[in-house]
Amino acid sequence: MTAFANATIKKQANIYFDGKVTSRTITLNDGSVVTLGIMLPGEYEFGTEKPEFMEITSGELSVQLPGIDDWVAVTSGQSFNVPGEAKFRLKVSTVTDYCCSYLD
Amino acid sequence: MTAFANATIKKQANIYFDGKVTSRTITLNDGSVVTLGIMLPGEYEFGTEKPEFMEITSGELSVQLPGIDDWVAVTSGQSFNVPGEAKFRLKVSTVTDYCCSYLD
Repeated sequence: MTAFANATIKKQANIYFDGKVTSRTITLNDGSVVTLGIMLPGEYEFGTEKPEFMEITSGELSVQLPGIDDWVAVTSGQSFNVPGEAKFRLKVSTVTDYCCSYLD
Repeated sequence: MTAFANATIKKQANIYFDGKVTSRTITLNDGSVVTLGIMLPGEYEFGTEKPEFMEITSGELSVQLPGIDDWVAVTSGQSFNVPGEAKFRLKVSTVTDYCCSYLD
């Protein structure tokens, strides 16, 4: 899927880490929510409420998922899941364009 | 307006200046196109094809419009027009969230 049709896009961006991570909140036709975001190179820690499904549209990074010491490399076209109510860490190597879906 | 409803948003971001300027392309219900973007602090030069209407959702910057030497300060809630087929320059002081409309 290259675009989301019949969607509602919040005009105001979500801005984190002094603008090094930013995203747009989109409500899809079925009522579900995704964010389309950009991460600049750097190391970040995020916390989830709902479980999340992260799709990497472009970029290179590695992820340390909750409860796991190893860092896993992730690149364009790949994805990973993060459980809800958890923290995860990212080391972003190149500008990364992502789509995050929030799972019920 | 705080959101665009019934719109189509391209999944892939537009990425410029090594990620310091990024945007999302949105086609509105009436077929017109806007981009929602983020600019990190820095100095940039852009070129227009169609005339553009730039709305600053948040942030502080100054703009040098085509053919004008003076820099004009622009901040959250303000906007400016840029003629088509022209270059303009921006000095972005704080992370800036913008909406750019392309005028026919």
